[in-house]
Amino acid sequence: MRAVILAGGSGTRLWPLSRAQMPKQFLPLVGEGSLFQETVERVRSLVGDDVCVVTTEETRFLVAAQLAALGIDPEGKVISEPAGRNTAPAIGLAALAADPDEVLLVLPSDHAMTAPAVFQDAARRAAAVADAGLLVTFGIAPSSPETGYGYIRMGVALEEHDGFRVVERFVEKPDRETAEDYLADGGYVWNSGMFAFRAGVFLEELSRHALEVFSGLEPLRGVVVAGNPVPTAQYEALPKISIDYAVMERSHRVAVLPMDPGWSDLGSFGALWEVLGRDPDGNAVRMSGGGEAVLVDARRNLVLGGERVVALVGVEDLAVVDTPDALLVAPREHSQEVRRVVEHLQATGRPEADVPRTVPRPWGAYTVLEEGKDYKIKRIQVHPGGRLSLQLHHRRSEQWVVVAGTARVTVDDRVLDLAPGQGAEIPVAARHRLENPGREPLQLIEVQSGAYLGEDDIVRLEDDYGRVGR
Amino acid sequence: MRAVILAGGSGTRLWPLSRAQMPKQFLPLVGEGSLFQETVERVRSLVGDDVCVVTTEETRFLVAAQLAALGIDPEGKVISEPAGRNTAPAIGLAALAADPDEVLLVLPSDHAMTAPAVFQDAARRAAAVADAGLLVTFGIAPSSPETGYGYIRMGVALEEHDGFRVVERFVEKPDRETAEDYLADGGYVWNSGMFAFRAGVFLEELSRHALEVFSGLEPLRGVVVAGNPVPTAQYEALPKISIDYAVMERSHRVAVLPMDPGWSDLGSFGALWEVLGRDPDGNAVRMSGGGEAVLVDARRNLVLGGERVVALVGVEDLAVVDTPDALLVAPREHSQEVRRVVEHLQATGRPEADVPRTVPRPWGAYTVLEEGKDYKIKRIQVHPGGRLSLQLHHRRSEQWVVVAGTARVTVDDRVLDLAPGQGAEIPVAARHRLENPGREPLQLIEVQSGAYLGEDDIVRLEDDYGRVGR
Repeated sequence: MRAVILAGGSGTRLWPLSRAQMPKQFLPLVGEGSLFQETVERVRSLVGDDVCVVTTEETRFLVAAQLAALGIDPEGKVISEPAGRNTAPAIGLAALAADPDEVLLVLPSDHAMTAPAVFQDAARRAAAVADAGLLVTFGIAPSSPETGYGYIRMGVALEEHDGFRVVERFVEKPDRETAEDYLADGGYVWNSGMFAFRAGVFLEELSRHALEVFSGLEPLRGVVVAGNPVPTAQYEALPKISIDYAVMERSHRVAVLPMDPGWSDLGSFGALWEVLGRDPDGNAVRMSGGGEAVLVDARRNLVLGGERVVALVGVEDLAVVDTPDALLVAPREHSQEVRRVVEHLQATGRPEADVPRTVPRPWGAYTVLEEGKDYKIKRIQVHPGGRLSLQLHHRRSEQWVVVAGTARVTVDDRVLDLAPGQGAEIPVAARHRLENPGREPLQLIEVQSGAYLGEDDIVRLEDDYGRVGR
Repeated sequence: MRAVILAGGSGTRLWPLSRAQMPKQFLPLVGEGSLFQETVERVRSLVGDDVCVVTTEETRFLVAAQLAALGIDPEGKVISEPAGRNTAPAIGLAALAADPDEVLLVLPSDHAMTAPAVFQDAARRAAAVADAGLLVTFGIAPSSPETGYGYIRMGVALEEHDGFRVVERFVEKPDRETAEDYLADGGYVWNSGMFAFRAGVFLEELSRHALEVFSGLEPLRGVVVAGNPVPTAQYEALPKISIDYAVMERSHRVAVLPMDPGWSDLGSFGALWEVLGRDPDGNAVRMSGGGEAVLVDARRNLVLGGERVVALVGVEDLAVVDTPDALLVAPREHSQEVRRVVEHLQATGRPEADVPRTVPRPWGAYTVLEEGKDYKIKRIQVHPGGRLSLQLHHRRSEQWVVVAGTARVTVDDRVLDLAPGQGAEIPVAARHRLENPGREPLQLIEVQSGAYLGEDDIVRLEDDYGRVGR
């Protein structure tokens, strides 16, 4: 069995925690690792390292770094979509890359489960049924009349597969009253977006029920198997269509397996509050840095913070989300309108809409610590073995100071290794390069000086990540 | 007439905006300048530059810098209290420093007025009455049944001084019902803490009604007049007592002048919201930096921010106070319990309780931009002509990069002038000094490296501000 992990999503519902350039699945929202990493860890007892991650061009380096941090070599395990085309084409790519007889366990990467063993047991049983040629969809036993999920109406039990049932129909997100009826009825489960099927069976059903998708994908088979980049034009020509709509709602080979693994899609701050531990006053607090939440007469709030002191006095049922460059205060259960904030920021061109304060890069990450007139201060982190492009700037000079690890610095014809506390000056127009030759992460402070400090003042002469000329 | 401005206060009611080391009066809460500066500007048409500021040892450099920024030479105008002893001793110091016949206009420095001309007119009239030998207290015509102020019960009108009335009695902060009675009665005014009297008359009344204060102060006369530091032991021996309790409530020479200058003591975030401009939804927003407040379905909130995006979605009547190192979220009208936050932070030793992110220093200020393992990054600002002590550190090296202005840097025997973009390295144990020889403020980024980075790793060899050996 191979796990196909869908990691291309980019939502705004958890802004300012998540951003277009730092989607929710790559954040450590619940446990130590990111949601993506926890998804991988959850399936390791089932598939070992046989994972295939479908993600976007922008986030493939994040996927690779997060896999590597788990001790999994990302080589050959990541497929980048040149553009988002919803789940049917994404899963199609993964199916093309697999042996037709292999069972694929398809999983979103941005959900949480409090009882992973329940899921693992269900996945093992689903694998057997998938191997027999069925498409299995996992349904979640509903615990409340949720209006944010699609539902599956379960039909009769499958005689030959204990616990599995026929899918009577898929139903759209209901209104509150209908959701209450579904909950009372007992015959409905939440549509979790998790599936198991043989790769060949999926493609066969795709060709039967969504021929336009199948026909567009089929020519890419050799490309995907060889691990080459998916051709943009061909992929963009595919329709945007979900696996539910393209296959699951139409196929007659679908079975549903209800389970209750303490699942949440973490689709809102309210959902996040539900899964986090809470103090006796009902406050859920998670500080990612050295900050502290001070709560006085505060009840049932969600506090997500970092380095700062966050004081809540006399407030109830709020979500307070404190990030280095943006803050959200909203009722915990009604934070949906946060997308209007993001839209406003996008319309006015503010980077906080899409770009996180710490920007991931193939070689590591950088964080703008401060911008002032004619200067900018960055903290630059370089992975062991990582190397920035050989580059030059026409309009700024840079001063570098190493604060952790070892930096190998090239300035024109000189190459020197710098230890913490040591610095180097990069004059305007000097060819320069930064590299981490050590085994520990390199951290370096860069002070840029100049009248123009835009990220586009860069001439890349050589690059390990294929970015010369971009 | 001389204005005596009391600038020694240090409250926690506006935390995290105000801190023990950055009291409210030095912050620009309402207009362009700080409340202290606005107080000075308000009296310039009355007294010119003849101001006397009574403040603390810790904040005298702030007073001097803020006076200088208004074009007033602080020399001879600032009296530092070695310890807070409430208003009677503080005003006593100012009275000792003045000519006995001079009229003193005594003003707190942390209040706001929307109609300064009304105040100026009242002050001119009060000066004449004070010159005739009375102690004038300014009463504020109440606009609401405030329970946070003391009140003055006005008695009969003074025949010879139009608009002035006898003080019948001072009354403590009332409960709500009593405050409503006072408001309905019409014979009560708020006790504003502003006064006018001749220096000699005040001291005379002090000797008559609070002999222990007068006796303790009298020996300091020569010291204060000469501008020398007030001796700590002698001043600390004085009782802590307010001018109201020591003199105004006891003297028979007191007159009250009611006025309505749109006064507020800005004693809470609710009071600040009242005086600030508001959008059609009742939100008052003030961003001190490049940040932006994004308000979606938000009503009647107070938002005080800086560099970050502050998004409020669907919330009402909150105070959201966003500073670089601490955030407060509280109901706008019930933020009193914020002192419990400060107490908690003090008890756990967190600097955010008392120290602002930007720490004022005699020579300018510094801001810790980031602290990590074995490194710390500071932005250092030096006033024109300012000079840090000649110093050395035993356990850290420093890298300096100038980002604005000119730095004169001494490292052991070398002296060099650095322009923006240029840097210098300060090795461990090197004697070094930083100076701003230019006319523009100097800004410099310092990256400290070392296993110990405490502020106490400093050996001062020479200092312009008398801090050698401290």
